[in-house]
Amino acid sequence: MKKLSSVSLKNIKIEDSFWNRYTHLVPDVIIPYQWNILNDNMKDIETSHCISNFKIAAGYEKGEFQGAVFQDSDLAKWLEAVAYSLATHPDKGLEDMADGAIELIGKAQQPDGYLNTYFTIKEPGKRFSNLRDGHELYVAGHMMEAAVAYYQATGKDKFLQIMCRFADLICEHFSVRNDSVGYPGHQEIEIGLYKLYQVTGKKAYLRQAKSFLDRRGKKPNYFLEEEKKPGFQGLFPEFENYDPKYSQSHQPVREQTKAEGHAVRAVYMYSAMADIAAEYDDEELMDACRRLWNSITKKRMYITGSIGSSGILERFTTDYDLPNNCNYSETCATIGLALFSRRMAQITRDASYIDIVEKSLYNSVISGVAMNGKSFFYVNPLEVWPDNCIDRTSKEHVKPVRQKWYGCACCPPNIARTLASLGEYIYFADEQSVWINLFISSQAKVMIEDQEFKISMESNYPNDGKIQLYVSTAQKKKAKLAIRIPGYVKEWKISIDGAHIENPVVENGYCILEQEFESNEVNVEFAIAPRIVWANPLVKEDVGKAAVMKGPLVYCLEETDNGSNLPALYLDTEKGLEEYFDPDLLGGTTVIKATGKRVVTRDWNQDELYAEHKPVYKDVDLTFVPYPYWGNRDTGEMLVWVKE
Amino acid sequence: MKKLSSVSLKNIKIEDSFWNRYTHLVPDVIIPYQWNILNDNMKDIETSHCISNFKIAAGYEKGEFQGAVFQDSDLAKWLEAVAYSLATHPDKGLEDMADGAIELIGKAQQPDGYLNTYFTIKEPGKRFSNLRDGHELYVAGHMMEAAVAYYQATGKDKFLQIMCRFADLICEHFSVRNDSVGYPGHQEIEIGLYKLYQVTGKKAYLRQAKSFLDRRGKKPNYFLEEEKKPGFQGLFPEFENYDPKYSQSHQPVREQTKAEGHAVRAVYMYSAMADIAAEYDDEELMDACRRLWNSITKKRMYITGSIGSSGILERFTTDYDLPNNCNYSETCATIGLALFSRRMAQITRDASYIDIVEKSLYNSVISGVAMNGKSFFYVNPLEVWPDNCIDRTSKEHVKPVRQKWYGCACCPPNIARTLASLGEYIYFADEQSVWINLFISSQAKVMIEDQEFKISMESNYPNDGKIQLYVSTAQKKKAKLAIRIPGYVKEWKISIDGAHIENPVVENGYCILEQEFESNEVNVEFAIAPRIVWANPLVKEDVGKAAVMKGPLVYCLEETDNGSNLPALYLDTEKGLEEYFDPDLLGGTTVIKATGKRVVTRDWNQDELYAEHKPVYKDVDLTFVPYPYWGNRDTGEMLVWVKE
Repeated sequence: MKKLSSVSLKNIKIEDSFWNRYTHLVPDVIIPYQWNILNDNMKDIETSHCISNFKIAAGYEKGEFQGAVFQDSDLAKWLEAVAYSLATHPDKGLEDMADGAIELIGKAQQPDGYLNTYFTIKEPGKRFSNLRDGHELYVAGHMMEAAVAYYQATGKDKFLQIMCRFADLICEHFSVRNDSVGYPGHQEIEIGLYKLYQVTGKKAYLRQAKSFLDRRGKKPNYFLEEEKKPGFQGLFPEFENYDPKYSQSHQPVREQTKAEGHAVRAVYMYSAMADIAAEYDDEELMDACRRLWNSITKKRMYITGSIGSSGILERFTTDYDLPNNCNYSETCATIGLALFSRRMAQITRDASYIDIVEKSLYNSVISGVAMNGKSFFYVNPLEVWPDNCIDRTSKEHVKPVRQKWYGCACCPPNIARTLASLGEYIYFADEQSVWINLFISSQAKVMIEDQEFKISMESNYPNDGKIQLYVSTAQKKKAKLAIRIPGYVKEWKISIDGAHIENPVVENGYCILEQEFESNEVNVEFAIAPRIVWANPLVKEDVGKAAVMKGPLVYCLEETDNGSNLPALYLDTEKGLEEYFDPDLLGGTTVIKATGKRVVTRDWNQDELYAEHKPVYKDVDLTFVPYPYWGNRDTGEMLVWVKE
Repeated sequence: MKKLSSVSLKNIKIEDSFWNRYTHLVPDVIIPYQWNILNDNMKDIETSHCISNFKIAAGYEKGEFQGAVFQDSDLAKWLEAVAYSLATHPDKGLEDMADGAIELIGKAQQPDGYLNTYFTIKEPGKRFSNLRDGHELYVAGHMMEAAVAYYQATGKDKFLQIMCRFADLICEHFSVRNDSVGYPGHQEIEIGLYKLYQVTGKKAYLRQAKSFLDRRGKKPNYFLEEEKKPGFQGLFPEFENYDPKYSQSHQPVREQTKAEGHAVRAVYMYSAMADIAAEYDDEELMDACRRLWNSITKKRMYITGSIGSSGILERFTTDYDLPNNCNYSETCATIGLALFSRRMAQITRDASYIDIVEKSLYNSVISGVAMNGKSFFYVNPLEVWPDNCIDRTSKEHVKPVRQKWYGCACCPPNIARTLASLGEYIYFADEQSVWINLFISSQAKVMIEDQEFKISMESNYPNDGKIQLYVSTAQKKKAKLAIRIPGYVKEWKISIDGAHIENPVVENGYCILEQEFESNEVNVEFAIAPRIVWANPLVKEDVGKAAVMKGPLVYCLEETDNGSNLPALYLDTEKGLEEYFDPDLLGGTTVIKATGKRVVTRDWNQDELYAEHKPVYKDVDLTFVPYPYWGNRDTGEMLVWVKE
């Protein structure tokens, strides 16, 4: 299966009214902010210890390892974000800073290639002996992704060489000829090894990635055997009575039919499965990917593109179980779902996968970061009541306010690398074609055979549905332009050079324009009025409720616009929705107005809990703002699914 | 404050159509069943180790302590249940069995009076050094309650003497002159010491109970100091970063205004506060009791009389936070609320406290036990979907099926002792008066001054609202009969010897008949038709929903009667409710029928999660059964609050 390629970030420039506020944050705020955190230069923030651990491992400093066992991955994801940022926004100072960090990583590497500060400093004799909890391979995977990205952005191969040395050691230790030696407790290295193979061409890395997938879930379960070994000590109390489902090791991956266990582990693994399936033309593995993607997106995913219904263990639960106020819906899991879906689209050329990419990016990825780039949500609920987000209760994981940092700081640098690599989602290409996936204003250069095509996209999406594409190339040349028609769009039209196309060809959700191009203007217009969406009535939590959307954006009610006690509000789904652009609100946004009613407390006194008082209603106007923007004003309640 | 007394269980005989099925279970099933469990004679049930621990502590067997640190309390509560049962149903065999257990307890007692198998076997040097987690005083309290009950039932004082010896040691160690020596991490001994004082007259026990209450919550917090002591080791990982609120030690008890922390700890403490307040005429303490009772019942209690909104740490959260499908609502906490409310009623002579006693007993106490007496709910949710009650998720504590036993088996013997002592709730008395609290068919003998009054109550409550009372006494004598008019009753009438009373005197919710009695028949009739109840709209989880009740009984929908996906059902609150008695259903019960509608899935295929499909409804009939009876037929969904 020939995968479509993403267009190199070096060849894309994004200037988009919706996205600029986030993408500009990466070089301007997030990268320097997170660098300060990794270096423990910030006050009033949980100490990271990340760079400090590397310095100790490198012998520059004395001390104990501190932080989470996977703390090194924060630096990896930061470097990956830096790499993507340098690809699009070269910055000598930042590159020097990154080179310094890479230098440090190199010094922390052990003579035999091993690289992990926790095991180097704290448990030098215990390498690879606690795959269930140790996260060595997980960290290595992130390091590999970062090294590849840095090489691609800068051409410098020092980091790549460091990671190849470690990859060689891993391939030796985890020999593809010996399944019994185990596989990662947290998947990620499979993605990293595959990327390393892509830039180095070393088949050993590819084979190792495939082997990690194929040995996973075989009987007897590796982790259940591992914990019986003498000296084994769990690092996470919550892993007692370990259920292999947690790490998707309950079944061979090819046999898995439902998305189970820890959501981030799951979607990272499925992403790797898609990579390997495409590389090996492995239809069986591809079928498993399709099944698991369907399991998520058709039974176990929030309308915001987030996943993980259980606050405990951040995991999938059962079909249609989608509670709105106690879910985990980790930002990293949404990012993983976007990564998985993007790969599926690259392989299948089916736009329905991009519908999920778009849903994820526009909602639960950017909900994870404050508009000032300095605080983050790990948990992305669809209903929040700040008063009951109390420590040491069932809602303790739900935060009504984004946090500056976190002991387990996986999400913030993951958001940074995702925003910095946004360009990779917009366009795909193969030798004859350009795919337009997302309607993010940008300029891109794509090679069609050996001829460069320049694509310029202009839109105000999703505020409106008008997309202008300018295609230009030095000499007239035949090519295929595939423009995604979003799944939610019911009416649309397309013209080329002013001429309306009567019966456009649509294949797998892409409108196909196959012709000679030289200098052409394509105009697409999607009907993108606000709409009301319902959940399948099997989703118990959402029966009797409706959500408001516009394009890919989910909207929500916030207390600051609608008063407190949002669950007492009803949306009139018979009356229309009105929209207007408010340039002063939340940095400029389309606001949606609706009419409805509110149960009032008129008949009740505060000391009556239950009584025979039939509800009394009053008419109210409802104000909806985009879900990803919630929590950027006053602290208060938030609600996506509104009674109707 | 002179407290009304409960009538001795020896002087009450219950024969009631509603309660018999439960009260008869105690001697017939629960006591022998639990005895087998305590002795590890049951297969397929989590091993108790309880008696085995006593045998080891007594030197009869060799071995290690096993089970929870508070495992001894299971035997204490079992003995308390046995005592109440012997008071009403003398049984030589059972009494011999109990005498044997008491003999064993005596042998396990240490020479200085100390009694606790965990610390005796496992941590002999660590007595009273981990009050936060050790539960020594908690277990002692239950033992004291059992010893008093056994003495009152049988006249035998061996157990009482054992517990007095331990109480003396406790009074010495925890001297009332030295606050810094601490107080229990789990309240209960305050109740036990007070009962011990009541039967022995030893003021030291009373003073010790008061001192435990008064030193609680003083600064610096005892538990936060204790955990700093060298050698301190926590027994519960979830107590890391201990919040004194958990054990109501965040403030002096007299200053507390809101029900906080672990619900069982809270209501046991409030019960003791009421005891002490009455004993010392302590208005300040009584005010705290009133505030805390109001905090629970007017802001933090389920309609079923259960408490503890958070699945994690089984605790109170915030006002009006009453989620229905992930709450804890522990059976023991409801029992504690009934104990607290009963004391408040005894002190204040205010029937509104009995409203809560009745709500608790009729709903969340008996929901805790299966109709066959052999399985138990610890958690009493108001909405259950078996498919998502999955281990290692946010719903892991919610069980769709009652369990045979449990590692932490607090609830089953607590239910047993409550059912066995049901008579204590029905009548109160003082020297001139008899209070009729609950309408449970029974015969009672009460002394009015030195003359015996026989009261015979006959009712089919709550199936109907007719109560017949026969009062007879050897010689005509003036007395006061106070008959509770339940708070939910809107219309009622009363007659004596056939003569309707036009303007009955009602004081604090009791109808007062003050006259000469000799042989009289009092008839009361409450309007008790099924009714629809709403929650205060500040209870976010219940807005847009209604509940069906009849008398004190909350009703619910079960899947077996109404099909699956109960949250898709709507109750038509404009149309009437119909009721009928079904003698074959659930051992005979009033069933309530209503009309409503159901959202159907007609427009949806299983692979659509979100779409622009406006809901489609069909008319349906709804069948409601009493909440306490749920889960006694096929495993399935259950729902109390129904959409309207």
